[in-house]
Amino acid sequence: MRLLLINPNTTATMTADIAQAARAAAPAEVEIVATQPGFGPASIEGFFDEAIAAAGVAEQMRLAGPVDAAVIACFGDPGLDAAREVCEGPVLGIAEAAFHVASMVATGFSVVTTMTRTCVIAEHLLQKYGLERRCRGVHGTDIPVLALEDGGQACLPQIEDAAREALARDRSGAIVLGCAGMAQLCQTLQQRLGVPVIDGVAAAVRLTHSLHVLGLGTSKHGDYAPPLPKRYAGWAAGLASPAGR
Amino acid sequence: MRLLLINPNTTATMTADIAQAARAAAPAEVEIVATQPGFGPASIEGFFDEAIAAAGVAEQMRLAGPVDAAVIACFGDPGLDAAREVCEGPVLGIAEAAFHVASMVATGFSVVTTMTRTCVIAEHLLQKYGLERRCRGVHGTDIPVLALEDGGQACLPQIEDAAREALARDRSGAIVLGCAGMAQLCQTLQQRLGVPVIDGVAAAVRLTHSLHVLGLGTSKHGDYAPPLPKRYAGWAAGLASPAGR
Amino acid sequence: MRLLLINPNTTATMTADIAQAARAAAPAEVEIVATQPGFGPASIEGFFDEAIAAAGVAEQMRLAGPVDAAVIACFGDPGLDAAREVCEGPVLGIAEAAFHVASMVATGFSVVTTMTRTCVIAEHLLQKYGLERRCRGVHGTDIPVLALEDGGQACLPQIEDAAREALARDRSGAIVLGCAGMAQLCQTLQQRLGVPVIDGVAAAVRLTHSLHVLGLGTSKHGDYAPPLPKRYAGWAAGLASPAGR
Amino acid sequence: MRLLLINPNTTATMTADIAQAARAAAPAEVEIVATQPGFGPASIEGFFDEAIAAAGVAEQMRLAGPVDAAVIACFGDPGLDAAREVCEGPVLGIAEAAFHVASMVATGFSVVTTMTRTCVIAEHLLQKYGLERRCRGVHGTDIPVLALEDGGQACLPQIEDAAREALARDRSGAIVLGCAGMAQLCQTLQQRLGVPVIDGVAAAVRLTHSLHVLGLGTSKHGDYAPPLPKRYAGWAAGLASPAGR
Amino acid sequence: MRLLLINPNTTATMTADIAQAARAAAPAEVEIVATQPGFGPASIEGFFDEAIAAAGVAEQMRLAGPVDAAVIACFGDPGLDAAREVCEGPVLGIAEAAFHVASMVATGFSVVTTMTRTCVIAEHLLQKYGLERRCRGVHGTDIPVLALEDGGQACLPQIEDAAREALARDRSGAIVLGCAGMAQLCQTLQQRLGVPVIDGVAAAVRLTHSLHVLGLGTSKHGDYAPPLPKRYAGWAAGLASPAGR
Amino acid sequence: MRLLLINPNTTATMTADIAQAARAAAPAEVEIVATQPGFGPASIEGFFDEAIAAAGVAEQMRLAGPVDAAVIACFGDPGLDAAREVCEGPVLGIAEAAFHVASMVATGFSVVTTMTRTCVIAEHLLQKYGLERRCRGVHGTDIPVLALEDGGQACLPQIEDAAREALARDRSGAIVLGCAGMAQLCQTLQQRLGVPVIDGVAAAVRLTHSLHVLGLGTSKHGDYAPPLPKRYAGWAAGLASPAGR
Repeated sequence: MRLLLINPNTTATMTADIAQAARAAAPAEVEIVATQPGFGPASIEGFFDEAIAAAGVAEQMRLAGPVDAAVIACFGDPGLDAAREVCEGPVLGIAEAAFHVASMVATGFSVVTTMTRTCVIAEHLLQKYGLERRCRGVHGTDIPVLALEDGGQACLPQIEDAAREALARDRSGAIVLGCAGMAQLCQTLQQRLGVPVIDGVAAAVRLTHSLHVLGLGTSKHGDYAPPLPKRYAGWAAGLASPAGR
Repeated sequence: MRLLLINPNTTATMTADIAQAARAAAPAEVEIVATQPGFGPASIEGFFDEAIAAAGVAEQMRLAGPVDAAVIACFGDPGLDAAREVCEGPVLGIAEAAFHVASMVATGFSVVTTMTRTCVIAEHLLQKYGLERRCRGVHGTDIPVLALEDGGQACLPQIEDAAREALARDRSGAIVLGCAGMAQLCQTLQQRLGVPVIDGVAAAVRLTHSLHVLGLGTSKHGDYAPPLPKRYAGWAAGLASPAGR
Repeated sequence: MRLLLINPNTTATMTADIAQAARAAAPAEVEIVATQPGFGPASIEGFFDEAIAAAGVAEQMRLAGPVDAAVIACFGDPGLDAAREVCEGPVLGIAEAAFHVASMVATGFSVVTTMTRTCVIAEHLLQKYGLERRCRGVHGTDIPVLALEDGGQACLPQIEDAAREALARDRSGAIVLGCAGMAQLCQTLQQRLGVPVIDGVAAAVRLTHSLHVLGLGTSKHGDYAPPLPKRYAGWAAGLASPAGR
Repeated sequence: MRLLLINPNTTATMTADIAQAARAAAPAEVEIVATQPGFGPASIEGFFDEAIAAAGVAEQMRLAGPVDAAVIACFGDPGLDAAREVCEGPVLGIAEAAFHVASMVATGFSVVTTMTRTCVIAEHLLQKYGLERRCRGVHGTDIPVLALEDGGQACLPQIEDAAREALARDRSGAIVLGCAGMAQLCQTLQQRLGVPVIDGVAAAVRLTHSLHVLGLGTSKHGDYAPPLPKRYAGWAAGLASPAGR
Repeated sequence: MRLLLINPNTTATMTADIAQAARAAAPAEVEIVATQPGFGPASIEGFFDEAIAAAGVAEQMRLAGPVDAAVIACFGDPGLDAAREVCEGPVLGIAEAAFHVASMVATGFSVVTTMTRTCVIAEHLLQKYGLERRCRGVHGTDIPVLALEDGGQACLPQIEDAAREALARDRSGAIVLGCAGMAQLCQTLQQRLGVPVIDGVAAAVRLTHSLHVLGLGTSKHGDYAPPLPKRYAGWAAGLASPAGR
Repeated sequence: MRLLLINPNTTATMTADIAQAARAAAPAEVEIVATQPGFGPASIEGFFDEAIAAAGVAEQMRLAGPVDAAVIACFGDPGLDAAREVCEGPVLGIAEAAFHVASMVATGFSVVTTMTRTCVIAEHLLQKYGLERRCRGVHGTDIPVLALEDGGQACLPQIEDAAREALARDRSGAIVLGCAGMAQLCQTLQQRLGVPVIDGVAAAVRLTHSLHVLGLGTSKHGDYAPPLPKRYAGWAAGLASPAGR
């Protein structure tokens, strides 16, 4: 099984870090093809960054050619619906995967994320996915995304503190890590906190593999049908659906 | 990995059918231990049946001793929260698993189930899991659960018709099968309908395996902590938590 | 009018306490028949306890024979929907009754309950009944249920403190007592707090009587129709609907 | 117990009809004091009628002097929150009472009301009370309110037809009558339809009596505290709270 | 364009203040006709005050004769739906206008209002208008409405403090002023707080003008059709719809 | 006032059409600067088209330099949140504007849009903006967006039919046109249907002007603060926030 792992930002070291986390979580038969957009922000810390990154995800989905599944490895799930239109296989965002998994292991969970200004993005996603009642709090740490580039060890104490406070204040039973860059801290945090700590990268890799093995891909009936053939202008010309599809 | 598969009703042939479907979906390293309560209804087609069956699920969880994960194979997810309290590993209900998976492959899905009177049970679960906006319709066929005992081939046309009508009327992109007894019809229906058709048994087996591999079990912090030690009376005496836990 | 009052736990002294509270609240023409399951936990302080207790409620409803109405006297309303299927008359849970009544006397209310881990059960019920926007807070005191056995006088200060804090913090106008064992503290608390304090036992007894007098019983059309006739195995054999129903 | 029954419209024959229905439902110890505003519309069939009628309800609550409880007998519950501020005892609207009761006897109910343009008023109330998920449909018959003045026998077939259609189409288990003027049809409809049929007048009378007996009145702590003393101009001068309160 | 500006309370100086704020916000072609009910409370600080004031709004709408648009200048939007039935042009409440505008300039906003007991009125409106998820807090200051009569300068520090605290605690990006009497403080507060501060009077005046220019009036198809012709009793006799309408 | 009007697709004739509609709706003092992305799809009829278009909106916002306000003229509101981060003035999407306006003139409205597969986009927006309870139906006509290029006269009968059916079936009081390309049909449809018909282009132009005149811009406190300075790669390099901001 060939799984396209898209890091929606353009920081190559982060792509490598995330790929490593993904490979650690993947079954042997999964080939992880890690990629990043050819354009866009070095990190995603707001709506503007995200809008460009979503186009980057769409671009990478098109350029990748046929894959069995895809994972979008940024906690805002940029371009998720777009990616689904151009993929026959399953496509998951890491926030989506993490939220669903968290709701299966605790009656309530808390999210610990990076910049406070991105909390609202997580809140919008929770609302969209229907899990807003399961999430008892989204907490910003104001750690810049790229401060997590080296595996994030330097930020561990700050994240651990935020998680402990969230567990107590929110009456939560699990922690969702709100950034792909936190993936490598997951096990350590779980051991220290004594509650399930969910990294969306690993969760999404495993879930897409499960869907693939179950023979379940993105529905091509209705809202996720392939994009209609039409002209695309400028740099995006190559992203258009061919007319004969 | 040892996975406890509980058929909440007491029809042994149905337990065997479901176990077969579970084994077909499971990775090689998963040992499926199929069981059914020592008491209770031959099938679950209403709230009363379900209340007794939920106690049967709780009983089986206790009697099973340590397992790595558990799946509750009835579409009402009876006893799910109770089972989570007594299991360190992940526990999923098949309705829960199916709903979450369906929301990952289509913007909207429809449920085709057995007795119309059980539609409300699915609707309550959708509300509880937060997926009520993703589900565009729950449709009863008034097929009795035990009519599905032999794999359900005889009921295939009726279920297919109901699914086709649901797809058209609900503007849905996927079908969720609303009974463990429909598991063996899943692939045929998917081929005929041309949309993802989700069987909760296979979905739950794969998801619990994924959670297990990810090192994620049921949170023991807070609401799913082990039952408090106390006296249990009557036939249930053996279900009590030992005082020294 | 014959009213079946089911204490879902198996502590006889608690059944007697609750029966006393029920009789104090009932009109003269109501005969309170108090009962408790023949099996199950001595108190209900989590999902596992509750699952067994719900089966006990179902059992008692069957064994009781025809009654005019029933009340389920545990704040998690265990077995409520099951009980409704086997009763022509009205059936109420004490949480349900208390929540509805509270919403009639205040724009917002707070719940003060026993173990913190059971708050989530109340929250699920509020969601199910639609009263989650009226409830401004559910507060655990971590008083064990059986500490309330003797009428609960010893716990009064702790409950009063929790209620005062809830009124202030939640901007609430009324208090709902979150355990049948608190019934005898209701009047004292109301006098001290100066706001309506709602005990679900009294509320449920009065409401079922009102429904009975109005000629309103549980709908037998649709979702609460009598259980379908089928085989029940093991100790539950006697709970099956007779085929000829 | 002295219960103020306010017909919010100014049609005296309707006041008498409703009072008759209320007395038929009330326990012996309840004295029903029926009244109607000194001003306002002959019937309430829209928002404008309702705004004037709500002031009429407020006026009657003030003029009545101390009563033990009050019922507002129009299906839009006009002036309900205002009435609660000036009453120490419980105050219920008939829509509120009917919706709550219906949710206790069926998993879903339908409303059959008068003018289609008033359906939205019932829908707003369902939303406000939190029972919008329990109500599966609100159906207008376009029967003018005053056509029900004589007990409504002439409209019985039309209401019965609408109720039958609602039960089938909405998968409902109970019918709520959406007008005080339908009170006298309730029993006949229940016999013919074979499901619980809820008249809000009888329901509200019984519920307020229950609350009164339970010692529960409107919370005077917070949002329903008595109106602040201030000057009222014009015809409303007498409605002001006295400064010394 | 002739715009009817209704101050729902009966304090003439406040009507003048609000009219001044409205004129300051209105385009040159808008003629502001300011009015107040002929009866009712000097200020609106609870449900009872509001019920009488809503009738006053209805009265003024009728007496005004044809206008191009109307604004109801009290933060509870009393009589809004009633006013719409009798107006062909657009009608807005100031809370409604402020909430909608706030949702266009920030992902979340906070409300700073007068008496704490009126917070619940704002919360009900947010729920009704669907903006309850956008509002992150409603904060009472317990400033009496009439303390704002002189433009409210004396209350500025208290309001500013409450706004600063709300911005921090609620993670909000904008402040909605919860009383027409605060209109003249809006610009000062915006300068001092550095976030958008929304005064509903100005917002409603501009929005109704916009709707008018767009050729959009209140729909007369369905729920806002003119009131049905019928007899009105007492002082309200003149408010009835003429039969021939 | 300088208003940036962004047509998110790359069809210049459509940009011109929309600009014409915007100018017809704008006050004299508004200078409409119409633009379209330098890249992307010729029309937006699905999630993939939309993701690229959103980046195009972001690009145009950056390139435009300082403007007083902006309108995004595609019914999916692509890039709205991103645009707000880079604009001090107000920014509105046409779906957002239309939904808010519709909720001010009718208790319920229906949307008539182009391709059925885009209905889900409107439904997601309604959910996001909180207006999902006000919208009683979203109806696809399967008219391709570019079939509306010439003002849409050829499609008028089909749109009119869909609108009539929606009004009857949904019990709605107003119609929202679900495509910027329908703007020029608005007045004709309103005359023929006899209900308010809302074109989002005109609505958004008028609303942004109103906000501007009120001194209200996008909050720069919190979630809509300017994008953080960082490196942008590839064609997007010029879109980065300068470090010194």
